[in-house]
Amino acid sequence: SQPKTPSKEDGEFRDYSHSEIARDAATIKNSVVMHLAATFLRTPSNIDSAHAYLASAFSVRDRLLQRWNLTNEYHDKIGAKRVYYMSLEFLIGRTFDNALLALQLRDEYANVLGDVGFRLEDAIDEERDAALGNGGLGRLAACYVDSMACSNYPGWGYGLRYKYGMFQQQIINGYQVEAPDCWLDSPNPWELPRPDIAYPVKFYGHLVRDPEHEHRYKWESDVVYDAMAFDVPVPGYGTNNVGNIRLWSCKTNTLFDLNKFNAGDYQGATGGQVAAQILTDVLYPNDNTNEGKELRLRQEYLFCSATMQDILARFKKSGKPLSELPDMAAIQLNDTHPTLGIPEMMRLLLDEEGLKWDEAWDITTRTFAFTNHTVLPEAMEKWPVPMLDKILPRHMGIIYDINLYFLQSVEKKFPGDRELLRSISVIEESNPQQVRMAYLACVGSHKVNGVAAIHSDIIKQTIFKDFVRVQGADKFINKTNGVSPRRWVNECNPDMSELITEVVGDRSWVNDLSKIKVLEEKVDDKDFCKRWWDAKQKNKGRLAEYILSTTGIKVSPNALFDVQVKRIHEYKRQLMNILGVVYRYHRLKQMTQEERDKELHRVVIFAGKAAAGYWVAKQVIKLINSVAEVVNSDEEIGDVLKVVFIPDYSVTAAEYIIPASDISQHISTAGTEASGTSNMKFVLNGGIILGTVDGANIEIGEEIGEEQIFFFGCLAHEVEDFRHYLRFHQPKPDTALQTAFDMIQRNTFGDAHIFQPLIDAVMRGGDVYLLSVDFPSYIEAHKAVEAAYRQRDEWVTKSILSVSRMAKFSSDRAIQEYAEEIWNAEPVPVRGSII
Amino acid sequence: SQPKTPSKEDGEFRDYSHSEIARDAATIKNSVVMHLAATFLRTPSNIDSAHAYLASAFSVRDRLLQRWNLTNEYHDKIGAKRVYYMSLEFLIGRTFDNALLALQLRDEYANVLGDVGFRLEDAIDEERDAALGNGGLGRLAACYVDSMACSNYPGWGYGLRYKYGMFQQQIINGYQVEAPDCWLDSPNPWELPRPDIAYPVKFYGHLVRDPEHEHRYKWESDVVYDAMAFDVPVPGYGTNNVGNIRLWSCKTNTLFDLNKFNAGDYQGATGGQVAAQILTDVLYPNDNTNEGKELRLRQEYLFCSATMQDILARFKKSGKPLSELPDMAAIQLNDTHPTLGIPEMMRLLLDEEGLKWDEAWDITTRTFAFTNHTVLPEAMEKWPVPMLDKILPRHMGIIYDINLYFLQSVEKKFPGDRELLRSISVIEESNPQQVRMAYLACVGSHKVNGVAAIHSDIIKQTIFKDFVRVQGADKFINKTNGVSPRRWVNECNPDMSELITEVVGDRSWVNDLSKIKVLEEKVDDKDFCKRWWDAKQKNKGRLAEYILSTTGIKVSPNALFDVQVKRIHEYKRQLMNILGVVYRYHRLKQMTQEERDKELHRVVIFAGKAAAGYWVAKQVIKLINSVAEVVNSDEEIGDVLKVVFIPDYSVTAAEYIIPASDISQHISTAGTEASGTSNMKFVLNGGIILGTVDGANIEIGEEIGEEQIFFFGCLAHEVEDFRHYLRFHQPKPDTALQTAFDMIQRNTFGDAHIFQPLIDAVMRGGDVYLLSVDFPSYIEAHKAVEAAYRQRDEWVTKSILSVSRMAKFSSDRAIQEYAEEIWNAEPVPVRGSII
Repeated sequence: SQPKTPSKEDGEFRDYSHSEIARDAATIKNSVVMHLAATFLRTPSNIDSAHAYLASAFSVRDRLLQRWNLTNEYHDKIGAKRVYYMSLEFLIGRTFDNALLALQLRDEYANVLGDVGFRLEDAIDEERDAALGNGGLGRLAACYVDSMACSNYPGWGYGLRYKYGMFQQQIINGYQVEAPDCWLDSPNPWELPRPDIAYPVKFYGHLVRDPEHEHRYKWESDVVYDAMAFDVPVPGYGTNNVGNIRLWSCKTNTLFDLNKFNAGDYQGATGGQVAAQILTDVLYPNDNTNEGKELRLRQEYLFCSATMQDILARFKKSGKPLSELPDMAAIQLNDTHPTLGIPEMMRLLLDEEGLKWDEAWDITTRTFAFTNHTVLPEAMEKWPVPMLDKILPRHMGIIYDINLYFLQSVEKKFPGDRELLRSISVIEESNPQQVRMAYLACVGSHKVNGVAAIHSDIIKQTIFKDFVRVQGADKFINKTNGVSPRRWVNECNPDMSELITEVVGDRSWVNDLSKIKVLEEKVDDKDFCKRWWDAKQKNKGRLAEYILSTTGIKVSPNALFDVQVKRIHEYKRQLMNILGVVYRYHRLKQMTQEERDKELHRVVIFAGKAAAGYWVAKQVIKLINSVAEVVNSDEEIGDVLKVVFIPDYSVTAAEYIIPASDISQHISTAGTEASGTSNMKFVLNGGIILGTVDGANIEIGEEIGEEQIFFFGCLAHEVEDFRHYLRFHQPKPDTALQTAFDMIQRNTFGDAHIFQPLIDAVMRGGDVYLLSVDFPSYIEAHKAVEAAYRQRDEWVTKSILSVSRMAKFSSDRAIQEYAEEIWNAEPVPVRGSII
Repeated sequence: SQPKTPSKEDGEFRDYSHSEIARDAATIKNSVVMHLAATFLRTPSNIDSAHAYLASAFSVRDRLLQRWNLTNEYHDKIGAKRVYYMSLEFLIGRTFDNALLALQLRDEYANVLGDVGFRLEDAIDEERDAALGNGGLGRLAACYVDSMACSNYPGWGYGLRYKYGMFQQQIINGYQVEAPDCWLDSPNPWELPRPDIAYPVKFYGHLVRDPEHEHRYKWESDVVYDAMAFDVPVPGYGTNNVGNIRLWSCKTNTLFDLNKFNAGDYQGATGGQVAAQILTDVLYPNDNTNEGKELRLRQEYLFCSATMQDILARFKKSGKPLSELPDMAAIQLNDTHPTLGIPEMMRLLLDEEGLKWDEAWDITTRTFAFTNHTVLPEAMEKWPVPMLDKILPRHMGIIYDINLYFLQSVEKKFPGDRELLRSISVIEESNPQQVRMAYLACVGSHKVNGVAAIHSDIIKQTIFKDFVRVQGADKFINKTNGVSPRRWVNECNPDMSELITEVVGDRSWVNDLSKIKVLEEKVDDKDFCKRWWDAKQKNKGRLAEYILSTTGIKVSPNALFDVQVKRIHEYKRQLMNILGVVYRYHRLKQMTQEERDKELHRVVIFAGKAAAGYWVAKQVIKLINSVAEVVNSDEEIGDVLKVVFIPDYSVTAAEYIIPASDISQHISTAGTEASGTSNMKFVLNGGIILGTVDGANIEIGEEIGEEQIFFFGCLAHEVEDFRHYLRFHQPKPDTALQTAFDMIQRNTFGDAHIFQPLIDAVMRGGDVYLLSVDFPSYIEAHKAVEAAYRQRDEWVTKSILSVSRMAKFSSDRAIQEYAEEIWNAEPVPVRGSII
């Protein structure tokens, strides 16, 4: 049935839906109790903390959705330009606590739950992470939608609703074992199914050319799935605005086949449905690796097609001509995964809307912008032409045409430069031919950005070098990543946040991080410094409990907490870290007990997942656990050195770990980590970085001052020369590294054969990540850290100074830059009076 | 986490959850608007009647669930004996209007919707039927849970939550075409998922005998599914009690296989899940036919196992010893489909609870009772022993033991009677051997009942003859079916209900149908009779509109409405009806226009579905539509005769059709229709029956007086003799029937070859359903109907008298009898003060 406007009583309805739900305890309690009774059928004798959580969460969600509605209604009304952030990953984590803080109702809900006999903390702990991402790229997307909501930008995320999120990591016998993350098995308060918002998405089939239009085709196919929307509200802290992440779930729009069922073909009857559901079953558990599988391609296309159809449908409600789309919508591609959005937009404009090629191409390129996230060759997304041609025949045709017209323009500017045409072509002339998705994204966008200053420089010198020459340097800009101060300070570190609030005078710093600058004035305030130290120690105590409960290992909060938590990857060099631990263990074992007693106590903490098919990374996890087992049970060593691998790293685990670090390691080979964002989070929480001159480490150092950061290792421009030297000259490792290798090879940590491939990769495999080059300076840097940590006053000064100078790394700053320099979008706060 | 009682604040929480939600317009409006905004993300400009329905329904559901909770809490507290009505079918239809009436908030919601710009009727029309049943058996189950709620019995239904309900019937080119009923595609307000209530259900595997216990086995299997509960609240009219239907949905408890997924085996990764889901995908679209398929057996077992586990879990919360189960729970088997509940209960008591055989068997038989619904041989459920042994090895063993001990007891009482042992055995000695489920149900129950007086007599003389001899006649009783006056008068026939309420003085008759007796006093009140007639005419007008909108056929409400609506089945003899129409058409064609003008105008209305694999029944539908096409377009005939086949018969269609009948046909061959319940509904709505001396027709005649019913046809005890005669002597049909056949064979209604098999079944196939025997008296009966209908005053008298004498056929009476004579259960109204 058609929507109708409820005519004369509109005003009355509006009054109801626009008056904010009262914030008093009785209203809140009533709402929670009603959800307990009516949504979850609980009785007073039948409540557990899971349902205390669920009922409270639904009650909070009611408030969020009311604001969600008003936000969108308001943005429609004023015709605000929308920003669409397309990302195949959103690593959201938990929402409940975040929403309570945003609505500034945390104490009220704590009281109501207390009345009913529950602790808010227990309820919060019942929520399962929404882990729809692998690592930094997905978490960045979550921070960005948070910042858009909090800064009042009319921005939505678009993604996929994976039935199984990032796999659960179990550690069995020291090895990583992957189990599925069935996060939707219990009710999810933080999504709203939208059965009325669904789009058909085609695959395979054949094309029929429109005889009257050169670029218009009819695409006929029997394989048509439905992408249905689920909306995830994104609370805006201290504002009425509520953002949104629209996630697509795939189902068939072919009906269940009753005839097959009646004929006994039960699998056949549901076959179409199963094939469809699979598209959004699983988040691909890969990080910085191109996953060249057909299913992944279909998944990406489903995402892009539904999103483009939705964006166009939303735009068309405005009644404006399509030529104004770029004035009303900006689409940001988070990495190349959503690049098919470009040919899909072209297809819709050409085939469905009947536009001419040049109009369509102008609209498309003025709407899209592209963020590059990596220069690792293995992460460069490419799709074989035959595969694309089979699955998406129309898009392959459009990509050919995009490339043809682009190369014609290159030829015009640089006549006869065949080498240039070959190297800049979207189609790589390999066998089979491949579509270079990064090139397609670049050609189809008006801006391309890297995610940290050094990374943005590198891409201009490497993968986009030819494009800079052809399209000009202005197209390529830098947008250093950021992190949300809401989640990554205010929510995860309440004690330090109280201290900051005390110094700033109020909590305004949560939405305007530049205010924390004033902390700097406190470095000489002994009492403040003491309280700062105590806050860190309290966080360490909390982490020690978390470690005990997840691993059974008892660690002392009085030790230095030395943390490396991130995806396990060769370029991130967890191997270097654990070899350093082995070397340290060796040294400790050489000492007398008296000498050891003088050593600084240290807990080395690892966490992170390895992609299921990444064998080397999984062996590194095994090595870490094997070393931990030996070291932790060595009574001579005791608390002097503990090694911990916390299983199943997640956003929630990070919220325990990050506020508790003294030192954190960000030790990627120079030039390999595009930015990193956990480095920002650690420093924002008063931890000190031990890191290489790479990614955002560099800018962090610039902001907080080099005295506040422990750099080591070779520089990005030296890397290629080192690689060449290592490959062709095979130098011997230095003594420390050789000592570590020897210790492993003597079976100190169990059967050495298991670990030989890790040693071989360094000693015989060319040591691509320059571990042997950086190891000596790495060991020296650790010594410097120890010396500094022994000077507690100076250490606290470093910590406070660091935090006070971190304003730049708020994702709010990043989003503001994107809005001003790429999206041309403005903040549009929903006026207070509307609620 | 463990449930905990919210200690000291219990009282406060109780206050909240026990104070009924206010019934004023503002509270209702607020609740509807909040659901519009927060549950469905609607804004004032974005509401359609679908969402007006959904939001109102959720608002009503909140109220129901509050009462649902209180009901169950109260029954727990006082330790009420529970009644569990197990039925593989619940033909619920719509709930919204029913719930509004039960809560006595219909006007209030109509006003609120009106304020927002919608008509309640439109909102009601947005609801999709819950069609989890084939016909009478499933609708009876729905009426019974309604009566249990309204009469305050602590009764629950147990069933399966089919993803696809009864197929949608489309009529294409006159033929039935089945389409799936995707009733869960939009949100269903009338169910509450209970993820915390789920039980593992095993299949296949092998047994390990416990060496220390003769009857205790461990059943080991890798194929384990999960049955998860969905609760469907059943509104109690004019009481605080709310009943429940707990429906099970099957899913795998084997996790998604991430390893297979990573290895590219996408189908394999979800294979276990698909195999599980299929179990509750589809309601078997069969009526009165045994569906001997493995999948059906697995479906039945899933249902029985989950239900038994749940019943035991609920009982065990009381802390009482298992020996008291029969005092605390009664389980009624609605036909043989849930019979596996008996061996499953035994398995749980023996293998899980460790009871001895005799204890377990005593508990089981004192708990179970069984309702037989048919004597048609093709409907007798039997399962091949090899199939049972493979799928449910433990149950096959238990059934063998049940049978052995039973036969030993028979041998003791009737030593040496091998013929008796053979014929009474639960295992039929066919090849392969078969388990007779009706026998198993009988052996495992303490009471067995038929569903109308004649049917209960017949089963004692036929299938249970030997059991009466062995176990005594007292075990076999009659419980004549009934129908709910809430749905089948008060809801579907508002105008007549107003008249009844006026005469009774209030609406108490809705819960106490004996009160309608006073209508009898009104038969001489001319004005009242006029209004009674007018009410019927208004209902006929409403049906005429419904017919126009569903078939495009225009009928006049001034004609006699002659209705036969029910499953299409040979024994129900829709074929006799349409042959009668053909004969009538022939007679009309023979007349002069002048003669025709004097004929009574008649609309013959059919509706009903044929099982997808029931070819003969589907040909009957084709014949009806072919006749309709010719007759309706015959300008000579005009309004004198119209034939209508209303597609997709459903509870909702019945609510339009039944109140509009003048005459309805219930013309099964004597002895074949166990009871029928639509006959009761038609008479309750002031229609007159044209029927055979079969099923509940007989008792209806007894109650309302034979002058109020048009009987015809042979009697049940004559049937076998007629069959023998027809088979071996093949008499010629009478002239009328021959005339009808001739007309068909002359291609009057299209190619006669299509219909020849229908004619052959009568003329050459033995005429099992005695159509040729009853046809002459059938035609005579129609003449009597016409003569009577021409006497309008007498007709109205018949109508009023009939209704006034229908109290017996309330399902409340039936439930009270079950409760007193089988279940030993008492009404326990939730005290008013608790809300």
